[in-house]
Amino acid sequence: MSRRRKTRAPAGTGLRHVVSINDLDNAELETIFVRAEDLLKKLGGKDDKHAIRKSTDIAQGRILASIFFEPSTRTRLSFESAMIRLGGSVITSADPATSSAAKGESLADTVRVASNYSDIIVLRHPRDGAARYAAEFADVPVINAGDGGHEHPTQTLCDVFTLRRDRKTLKGMNVAISGDLRGSRTIHSFVYALARLKANLLLMPAKGMELPAHVDARLREEFDLTLAPRDMHDASVDALYVTAKEPHQLALYSEAQIRQSAEPALNRVDAVYVTRFQKERWKGGAQDYPKIDRKFLDAPKFRDARVMHPLPRVEELDIDLDADHRAAYFRQAAYGVPVRMALIALLLGLDDRIHLTRYPAGFKDGVDPLYRRPGDTGLRCANPNCIVHDPHEGQRTENKFNVIMRGGAPVLRCFYCETDIRDFVFASKHRKRIFGEAVPASLLPEHIADLIAFTSAGEALEAGFHPAQPLPGRPRKKASG
Amino acid sequence: MSRRRKTRAPAGTGLRHVVSINDLDNAELETIFVRAEDLLKKLGGKDDKHAIRKSTDIAQGRILASIFFEPSTRTRLSFESAMIRLGGSVITSADPATSSAAKGESLADTVRVASNYSDIIVLRHPRDGAARYAAEFADVPVINAGDGGHEHPTQTLCDVFTLRRDRKTLKGMNVAISGDLRGSRTIHSFVYALARLKANLLLMPAKGMELPAHVDARLREEFDLTLAPRDMHDASVDALYVTAKEPHQLALYSEAQIRQSAEPALNRVDAVYVTRFQKERWKGGAQDYPKIDRKFLDAPKFRDARVMHPLPRVEELDIDLDADHRAAYFRQAAYGVPVRMALIALLLGLDDRIHLTRYPAGFKDGVDPLYRRPGDTGLRCANPNCIVHDPHEGQRTENKFNVIMRGGAPVLRCFYCETDIRDFVFASKHRKRIFGEAVPASLLPEHIADLIAFTSAGEALEAGFHPAQPLPGRPRKKASG
Amino acid sequence: MSRRRKTRAPAGTGLRHVVSINDLDNAELETIFVRAEDLLKKLGGKDDKHAIRKSTDIAQGRILASIFFEPSTRTRLSFESAMIRLGGSVITSADPATSSAAKGESLADTVRVASNYSDIIVLRHPRDGAARYAAEFADVPVINAGDGGHEHPTQTLCDVFTLRRDRKTLKGMNVAISGDLRGSRTIHSFVYALARLKANLLLMPAKGMELPAHVDARLREEFDLTLAPRDMHDASVDALYVTAKEPHQLALYSEAQIRQSAEPALNRVDAVYVTRFQKERWKGGAQDYPKIDRKFLDAPKFRDARVMHPLPRVEELDIDLDADHRAAYFRQAAYGVPVRMALIALLLGLDDRIHLTRYPAGFKDGVDPLYRRPGDTGLRCANPNCIVHDPHEGQRTENKFNVIMRGGAPVLRCFYCETDIRDFVFASKHRKRIFGEAVPASLLPEHIADLIAFTSAGEALEAGFHPAQPLPGRPRKKASG
Repeated sequence: MSRRRKTRAPAGTGLRHVVSINDLDNAELETIFVRAEDLLKKLGGKDDKHAIRKSTDIAQGRILASIFFEPSTRTRLSFESAMIRLGGSVITSADPATSSAAKGESLADTVRVASNYSDIIVLRHPRDGAARYAAEFADVPVINAGDGGHEHPTQTLCDVFTLRRDRKTLKGMNVAISGDLRGSRTIHSFVYALARLKANLLLMPAKGMELPAHVDARLREEFDLTLAPRDMHDASVDALYVTAKEPHQLALYSEAQIRQSAEPALNRVDAVYVTRFQKERWKGGAQDYPKIDRKFLDAPKFRDARVMHPLPRVEELDIDLDADHRAAYFRQAAYGVPVRMALIALLLGLDDRIHLTRYPAGFKDGVDPLYRRPGDTGLRCANPNCIVHDPHEGQRTENKFNVIMRGGAPVLRCFYCETDIRDFVFASKHRKRIFGEAVPASLLPEHIADLIAFTSAGEALEAGFHPAQPLPGRPRKKASG
Repeated sequence: MSRRRKTRAPAGTGLRHVVSINDLDNAELETIFVRAEDLLKKLGGKDDKHAIRKSTDIAQGRILASIFFEPSTRTRLSFESAMIRLGGSVITSADPATSSAAKGESLADTVRVASNYSDIIVLRHPRDGAARYAAEFADVPVINAGDGGHEHPTQTLCDVFTLRRDRKTLKGMNVAISGDLRGSRTIHSFVYALARLKANLLLMPAKGMELPAHVDARLREEFDLTLAPRDMHDASVDALYVTAKEPHQLALYSEAQIRQSAEPALNRVDAVYVTRFQKERWKGGAQDYPKIDRKFLDAPKFRDARVMHPLPRVEELDIDLDADHRAAYFRQAAYGVPVRMALIALLLGLDDRIHLTRYPAGFKDGVDPLYRRPGDTGLRCANPNCIVHDPHEGQRTENKFNVIMRGGAPVLRCFYCETDIRDFVFASKHRKRIFGEAVPASLLPEHIADLIAFTSAGEALEAGFHPAQPLPGRPRKKASG
Repeated sequence: MSRRRKTRAPAGTGLRHVVSINDLDNAELETIFVRAEDLLKKLGGKDDKHAIRKSTDIAQGRILASIFFEPSTRTRLSFESAMIRLGGSVITSADPATSSAAKGESLADTVRVASNYSDIIVLRHPRDGAARYAAEFADVPVINAGDGGHEHPTQTLCDVFTLRRDRKTLKGMNVAISGDLRGSRTIHSFVYALARLKANLLLMPAKGMELPAHVDARLREEFDLTLAPRDMHDASVDALYVTAKEPHQLALYSEAQIRQSAEPALNRVDAVYVTRFQKERWKGGAQDYPKIDRKFLDAPKFRDARVMHPLPRVEELDIDLDADHRAAYFRQAAYGVPVRMALIALLLGLDDRIHLTRYPAGFKDGVDPLYRRPGDTGLRCANPNCIVHDPHEGQRTENKFNVIMRGGAPVLRCFYCETDIRDFVFASKHRKRIFGEAVPASLLPEHIADLIAFTSAGEALEAGFHPAQPLPGRPRKKASG
């Protein structure tokens, strides 16, 4: 019962975790949304207000464990409500101070044990990567309800569901995002989903709170977004991403069009997504934090914009908007129940006809080779808040990284928190030699067990490795390739 | 889903809140008690001890949300037990420190969201008036489980149910109440109910802990109680209220009778209700706090008195009484489950034959005109602990007041915490003139939208209003009336 | 509803508490294990991993109240999961800071009230003896989920179940126990059970953390264990208890056999039970705390030893062992659900065919006379952490003791925390005389109501008692006996 499992099980095994929004491919997102619509329709009374309070009994005898190491009302209660509406039950550990963590227990042990007491685990934790790490120790599906500043995928499911309810597709939607884009895990999951669903992103970060560099890079390198040139933006937008490779999108935002058209590029914003200052992830307060209010939304381009917010809000979203027809945030919160019902039902396999597991195990999963830091030598995850640096887990967590090829050069992406390291050198453990050139993608799978990564050649030298040498060629394969 | 609703819905809409005991009229109280008796009888085994642990399934699929911002075991667990005994389920946020409030969320937003996740909300909050305020934002019934020092109506339901079980009626009962009558919200709900059910009140407050002035005034002005003259009291009673307008009561306590009778007026006390020092509502400790023990109860008039206590008790009720046949407090706590089952069932409309909503929306509701403080000018609620002064809600709460006519003069009663303001002046917003005389009741509804209230004429003058002028007459209506 | 009840009800009354592992006799232990096996088999899928997550509905409509005054995840969640798997529901008070205890409520009142809201109570409390005390005030069964440093009987049920699953019997098993044997309540329950089931105990306490003296004495005096002579031990064992009176055991460990045999006495350890440093019960840290790791277990005698741990673990059990086939601790935790399901089902009488109450009320219960300290004079429990010394309960708790005869001399065992007092004198309340000799067992029941115990003759003299006198003889009975 205690055997380690692979995080993302192959299709058909019935054990799926949702840690990142990217653990679900586009077809699976659609499956979840269709199931949620279905629940609203089948259970529902005369309108959504009644539909979101209807119950079924398909999860009878099943238990959801809420394991929350950070404060929450909304997310925890909406998961618990969703499980109960499905006919299931809930066990809850909501307060770190009253849990075994107070006795010094590791997250790994907590999850291992909780997974014996439940059929599905919902986890919130202050460390980036904690949910992926927890999933390695669980015998049941783990849903990430927020892990440090990393991701919050089920919030994104609710957000996209809300947008999708009004329009059939997110393709070509202009979505503005305002506030603390760095500290908000919600935003990170959201921008990936928007990119994958081919919406355009208009970023309006608070000062110094831009998207983390690795998220920005990933949007452009993996999700085919292009950062539009500065002169395309209007003054209120700091960064505009367009889905550059989509012909109709390109056309929409080509400079030619901008000049010819009577209307500017950003003449229509379909949604303004506001997020609070994540004070728990910053030292000190926020200055000049943007506030969205009626005046801001008076600009014609916001005429039909839905105003969204993951809640809780503090000051960044004026309460005067509550009565505005564009306010979508309470609806967005209400959809948390049917969307989470759908996700839980699919992860538990409660419906014979619909499965997440028909689809591949995860989005782009298993493509990239996995580098495991050998023993106590070599670089570690660069994110100080990553779960691998948690002293309680310390002896247990190995540092491991997916090796992603970018422009011919390898990038190390932490397996847990997905922070990228771009500046490093590989060396050969066996030959004790530093490689003088980048390891090409084609050779990685073969060499990976012999590799060790250092933050610099100097560090490798200090560790007793020898100066750079060219990568050993594999002439036969090269010839045949 | 986010539209504001009126607090007290008109009969038949199905959305009823129980914030004050006065939200339920006497017929509705009786409905609840009959339903509770019914549950005990139908479900019950051989005796109450078994009956209070029986379950039904009429609330299957329904969710009660416990939202507690103050410590509680008894009240929260009895509500949760009641919901489960009805066949329903519960979601709980019991600890302010682990909830979204820790992130600075307003009560309004918390309640709005929680109401999407549940079918009924039970709320406890340290601010007076918080429950009424919360009800304005909820799409489901809100039950007040204690709001600051204001009210705790479901405790009163249990208390009255306990008294009513032994005798068919509370009419003419002599109920002594000892302890912190000022800080105890339980007592405030209780004295209103006793007055309405025509019991006599014998108040034995701890020193300096008399009933709040506005509660005292309300008992006499609205609930027809008379403060009996000093010489009718025995030494242990500081205030004796009798239901003066009831002929048989008057007779019972007429001075003539007192002099003629061999026994004094208070020769029989039917119940002694003890309450603890509400340390969380006072600065500093209590001195000479009254303690009820066997010796105190040795007086002949207490021979058949039930001893009651809302619990928890600290020192004010001697544990030696636990074995006394007059001790009713554990029974009183036990009835919390069937009484709350009845209330929940009625608010959720789980029984087709019995409805609270057959009755008018609330006790004396809608009779008094509502004055809304315009913008940022004019007086605010005089109670510093009222929810309207909570900095988290500050921007959201408007100060509003029911205008009650007392002896021809208007009294402003805070819509939320029901604290009265008697010294103030009205002015006309439109004419910028202070009224030189009181606004008569008949003219209020017409003038109310133009009125603004100040704590004094001086304050109005400072705000740029002009000196007093007589109220503009309405001769035509006056003539026809 | 508030009447006091005897802690351990006579057979057939249906109200049984499990405070100590010794409240269950051996036949009842077997009943629980058979029921748990049965649940795993009947509900179970292809293997234990599936079986522990299956549900039934026999507890529908029943409520378990979790009342935890100390941090817990594992124990609380496993009880709650067990109740839900049985089809029942749960109400929880998990945090002392948000409960009525914050208002100064006594445990007695909390339990009395909680017992009105539930069908069974699970209690954890920092005071030794708190669960026995609570049981005196409950109308429903109380299960001790840990009371200070006293006992944790349901953990022992899981432990023994785990050992019993692999082998049919614990008889003759060699069980090594490592760590904080003094502070760990889990260990105390465990050693009693091992002794009663005729296993041999090999104690490896951390320095200064030996078994409490009264537990050690009880093992030898009541459970027929013999402390083997020092030269029988190997170096790693500080104390070896063998079940001396069992002929085959004696043989196994006779000195003759040890010398003749090629293998030492401890050539085979069947289980190594590791426990963490109970930092909450000690001032200061632990030095040289033993750590069990692969190296330790390399010794041949540990070849087939199950490694067990009640969890949570901190540093005392190396995580490298998690992958070792001997690691049984996660399995042990997983069995917490079916074992607790069985216990709850039996205590609630959910199965007509199997009852705990067919058996005598408790292990060795009712045999020993009960001495009640009269008023405010005489010795009190010697354990400063006993519930009788809790200031919240102070006025309520009487000090009472079972009088156990040991070698002709009486021992006072605290009724609540079971700490023994061996040095004391009895005096006669009525004659105000100290007894000069020990009160013989045969006379105790007759004299007990007149007795008063002092820690010394000096203390009795100071309290106004007169010097020692011989025990008044009862010649007639003596003659006839």
